Amino acid sequence: MEEKTLEHLDPGAVRVAAADFWGKRILQVKETIIPYQWEALNDRVPGAPKSHAVENFRIAAGLASGEFYGWVFQDSDVAKWLEAASYCLWNFPDPELEQKVDEVIDLVAQAQRPDGYLNTYFTIKDPEGRWKNLRDNHELYCAGHFIEAGVAHYRATGKGKLLEVVSRLADHIADRFGDGPGKLRGYPGHPEIELALVKLYRVTGERRYLDLAAFFVNERGKTPLYFELEARARGEKELPWPFWTPAYCQAHLPVREQKEAVGHAVRAMYLYSAMADLALELHDTTLFAACRTLWENVTERRMYVTGGLGSSAQGEAFTFDYDLPPDRAYAETCASIGLVFWAHRMLRLEVDRTYADVMERALYNGVLSGMSLDGTAYFYVNPLEVVPEAVQKRHDLQHVVLSRQRWFSCACCPPNLARLLASLPSYLYSKDGETLYVHLFAESEVTAGLEKGRVVLLQKTGYPWEDIRFEVFPETPQEFTLAVRIPGWCREAKIRVNGEEADVSSLVERGYAKIRRFWQRGDRVELSLAMPVERVRAHPGVRDASGKVALQRGPVVFCLEEVDNGPGLSQIVLPEEAELCATFRPELLGGVVVLSGEAEREVAASSHLYAFRRPERRRVPLTAIPYYAWGNRGVGEMTVWIREE
Amino acid sequence: MEEKTLEHLDPGAVRVAAADFWGKRILQVKETIIPYQWEALNDRVPGAPKSHAVENFRIAAGLASGEFYGWVFQDSDVAKWLEAASYCLWNFPDPELEQKVDEVIDLVAQAQRPDGYLNTYFTIKDPEGRWKNLRDNHELYCAGHFIEAGVAHYRATGKGKLLEVVSRLADHIADRFGDGPGKLRGYPGHPEIELALVKLYRVTGERRYLDLAAFFVNERGKTPLYFELEARARGEKELPWPFWTPAYCQAHLPVREQKEAVGHAVRAMYLYSAMADLALELHDTTLFAACRTLWENVTERRMYVTGGLGSSAQGEAFTFDYDLPPDRAYAETCASIGLVFWAHRMLRLEVDRTYADVMERALYNGVLSGMSLDGTAYFYVNPLEVVPEAVQKRHDLQHVVLSRQRWFSCACCPPNLARLLASLPSYLYSKDGETLYVHLFAESEVTAGLEKGRVVLLQKTGYPWEDIRFEVFPETPQEFTLAVRIPGWCREAKIRVNGEEADVSSLVERGYAKIRRFWQRGDRVELSLAMPVERVRAHPGVRDASGKVALQRGPVVFCLEEVDNGPGLSQIVLPEEAELCATFRPELLGGVVVLSGEAEREVAASSHLYAFRRPERRRVPLTAIPYYAWGNRGVGEMTVWIREE
Repeated sequence: MEEKTLEHLDPGAVRVAAADFWGKRILQVKETIIPYQWEALNDRVPGAPKSHAVENFRIAAGLASGEFYGWVFQDSDVAKWLEAASYCLWNFPDPELEQKVDEVIDLVAQAQRPDGYLNTYFTIKDPEGRWKNLRDNHELYCAGHFIEAGVAHYRATGKGKLLEVVSRLADHIADRFGDGPGKLRGYPGHPEIELALVKLYRVTGERRYLDLAAFFVNERGKTPLYFELEARARGEKELPWPFWTPAYCQAHLPVREQKEAVGHAVRAMYLYSAMADLALELHDTTLFAACRTLWENVTERRMYVTGGLGSSAQGEAFTFDYDLPPDRAYAETCASIGLVFWAHRMLRLEVDRTYADVMERALYNGVLSGMSLDGTAYFYVNPLEVVPEAVQKRHDLQHVVLSRQRWFSCACCPPNLARLLASLPSYLYSKDGETLYVHLFAESEVTAGLEKGRVVLLQKTGYPWEDIRFEVFPETPQEFTLAVRIPGWCREAKIRVNGEEADVSSLVERGYAKIRRFWQRGDRVELSLAMPVERVRAHPGVRDASGKVALQRGPVVFCLEEVDNGPGLSQIVLPEEAELCATFRPELLGGVVVLSGEAEREVAASSHLYAFRRPERRRVPLTAIPYYAWGNRGVGEMTVWIREE
Repeated sequence: MEEKTLEHLDPGAVRVAAADFWGKRILQVKETIIPYQWEALNDRVPGAPKSHAVENFRIAAGLASGEFYGWVFQDSDVAKWLEAASYCLWNFPDPELEQKVDEVIDLVAQAQRPDGYLNTYFTIKDPEGRWKNLRDNHELYCAGHFIEAGVAHYRATGKGKLLEVVSRLADHIADRFGDGPGKLRGYPGHPEIELALVKLYRVTGERRYLDLAAFFVNERGKTPLYFELEARARGEKELPWPFWTPAYCQAHLPVREQKEAVGHAVRAMYLYSAMADLALELHDTTLFAACRTLWENVTERRMYVTGGLGSSAQGEAFTFDYDLPPDRAYAETCASIGLVFWAHRMLRLEVDRTYADVMERALYNGVLSGMSLDGTAYFYVNPLEVVPEAVQKRHDLQHVVLSRQRWFSCACCPPNLARLLASLPSYLYSKDGETLYVHLFAESEVTAGLEKGRVVLLQKTGYPWEDIRFEVFPETPQEFTLAVRIPGWCREAKIRVNGEEADVSSLVERGYAKIRRFWQRGDRVELSLAMPVERVRAHPGVRDASGKVALQRGPVVFCLEEVDNGPGLSQIVLPEEAELCATFRPELLGGVVVLSGEAEREVAASSHLYAFRRPERRRVPLTAIPYYAWGNRGVGEMTVWIREE
């Protein structure tokens, strides 16, 4: 744990250019995704599964009559939409959107009970059921999302209404939960409120919110298990589903005793994010140590090369070390999003490029694959290998779909994508007193107040396809450190400061090149990151990647699609010495680098199922596209891992 | 379809030596398996799941009071035991076993209703439910197994009691089913009675049994679907399970229109066996054509290299062409047994080694793997790759167990193994007028009445490890053809007749070397089948075998086990040029050939999950044992497919 902790710079300080790779997405959130998702939440998207999420609020607010519809966590879709819309307002002034957001906030406020309680399911359907089933009922989870929305809205707009609503909600919860007399000693089945309460603490300065977050984290996994006590109190004998275990909710052990990532991957990521937040705020080295142990377990044993998490559909869960089947992957979009949250928080505890590397891996691959290029269709599950007939005919692939969906009955991922993308400017830069950190590369401008004055940094780049150039504009010439991440995937980085080559190796500390100097206005730093096509090999423990490679260039993981390479992708063999060349194709898939080269394809020597002869081979062209862009040209086979010989 | 059809020689004409590979198993059925399974059926095996199958008969017979327990097909376990015991009596005189069998037959006879109906479930539990749910209730299936037992008992012992019982049962069924007025136009959800009725027809000469078998086969798949009509009549709206389809019962199409093997693999095999029987008895070329089409689909697209069938646990079913995942295989022991039944019947329609090759592949591999070496523990599911942690932690492997079980609540496989092994002598030889066929190799003696007189053939061999020698003893010197199968796996066969080398290629017709001569007593034929260690490659369409080989020597498929090769079998790479040597080890696993050689093992270059560098390799010894013998030395990893480079 660092002595000085980083401060991440928020969207108020960062502007990402509209032409940038991520800038386009950030703009897309505002222009397409937020409007589209609003339509979906109001059941106005033809053919999309019913949401009813906004209508539930109208009913709870007394503005409409009807029944609650949807999951017990249906409210969270509205909360995440509000949070995403708030980030949009932070990024772009937009009176029309601002007014719509205000209206939604009014609606939410009207749905809040006089005691501060806010949850349309229990308000409409089961008022007696409040707080009686923390294991399954997601009340604290939904509250967490509203708190995050309230904080985001306040920070983006300065308006306090939603923040007041969620503060009253948090106060209500703080009244009900804790170790005082008459309070419930429970904690959420789905973590989320913990990290939200830390945000609320930061914006309000109210210590009780931080304490409540710590309470929830510290109670988790204690014996006797709270979830069993409350189930007994409900008179229940059955588990929520036959294979349920406390690990599903990360309640199998107190958090400081957890050494391996188990259970539901999204829940794990949200919990670990909260643990990192608390480690930071409370200077809790034991929590930090637990975070590091879990980080290593996740990222060095249980993470797909795309940054996907969750090797099993059952329980949407982690399984065991090196168990990473590409076709049966769950790799929920939300889990990769959660990994970004966690990595971003770990960076504040310890400036090490490992965290930013993983964050970047998840962003460019397993997160972005969750959304169509046009922003209006989504994957919940992100496999690394798809064979359509297998998906149609194998029951163990029933969780996989062949094309992105317009919406989901359980629609956690789409608004989660929206809020992450809209808040992406805050993931790029950090500062501590004398240092300005660059974690991610995007054409952007950041303004940071350092100890010796304000600095504006311009980042010019066509990343992830091209090199990076910085221009530094201190308000007044001053000494500070510009710390630029040298990505772990880069074997050869060059830095020129005002045209003069620097000795990178002597600058780099835990993956950041620290350029300390007395900066003048207009000083230039050129960062050249060699981006050859790399072949990624998995640890030999990964059974399903044995003898195979994934192609990567820069942070982008590639895949083969049937539309480019024909069916039977498992029959393609990439010779070890085959050269692959990278070409930017502006007209393809919104503008992507494509890898191409020559490979071999096995051809049956006969129609026999088994034979002694090796199959024959013929030379074939090979075309790989970025994994995140797969599935945008119709249904077909796809694979990330390619056999190599 | 041949003009002259083969006649298979039954155990009365064949004696397999006790020291032979199969002879040991045949003896084991008598000495261990039949007594053991009797204990299991009477719930006297400690720790084994409850059977209650015999007690159900006592209750139905009025000799005990109590409730029916078990599956709706529990009776079939007793029937299969009786059939197996009958074959034992055919193979070996044993007054004690004969008396026990007679007692069981008495019990069964007492449980039969006055109208001929025989089924303890419906007699005890649901007398009104008879014949109302053919889709699920297995009444015709159980009847089929009793009919098979009755025929076997009669043929083995000449005693008519059980045959009378099952004839009355068959008459009862013939009264209820058919296209006459007031009759049910249904057919069984699980085929079995069809082939049993053909057997009953053959032994009784009663044409109505053959007609009923044909009725059941011809009705199948007609529209409207009988299973839907009867479900409607029962007032049912729900399917037996959510993903049920008519294909599960092979009722999706009339049998002559079926081109692909779908649904439950065991049901498919029993149906196809009956279709082959009927094609033969009725000279039905359309049925024969359907059998051939399905045969090619099964054996050239949907069969594991072990002769295992069924790529999916859901529905214990076929999936689609080339979908043969080794770890998720179902490959039920009964399905491979059914494949042997079918292959054996196809041989009678068309003497082609293809059928005997597949029969042999299934017997030595996917069938035999279903039983422990000591005969008292069983696999229901026979995967080709096992990683214990994956089986324990992945829900999509929940159907796999890590060690053979003492019994099953659904105990179809153990007595099915018993009846197949006990009847194995009848699978070795066939004749038509002037030809004596040798399909399988085993130290044995057969007596066959050919057109020109009786012939005794001695087969001397240590097969599957060694060569074969025949000695011919015609009653009087005579001309006939000895047709010896040259297995498809053999690339170099040599034949010497009385020491003189024959030109094999000129003798071979559809895989059988036809040696026609005027045979004298004591004439010798030596058959030398080269048995190098072969590397089997799957068709490139088999995604999961891409870049991998299976090792095979003779008919035996080998596997790697953790106990010999350490954990992490997927990290082993077999160099293309590596030599493997075969050594017979009499002390190991009941005496097996072991393959050994040198391979490479990938070793992590670092602890990183993903890296650009290839993993390092070190040379390691490699030991492969016959697949059928795996899992007899404790729990551990196992794989049939080995990466090759």
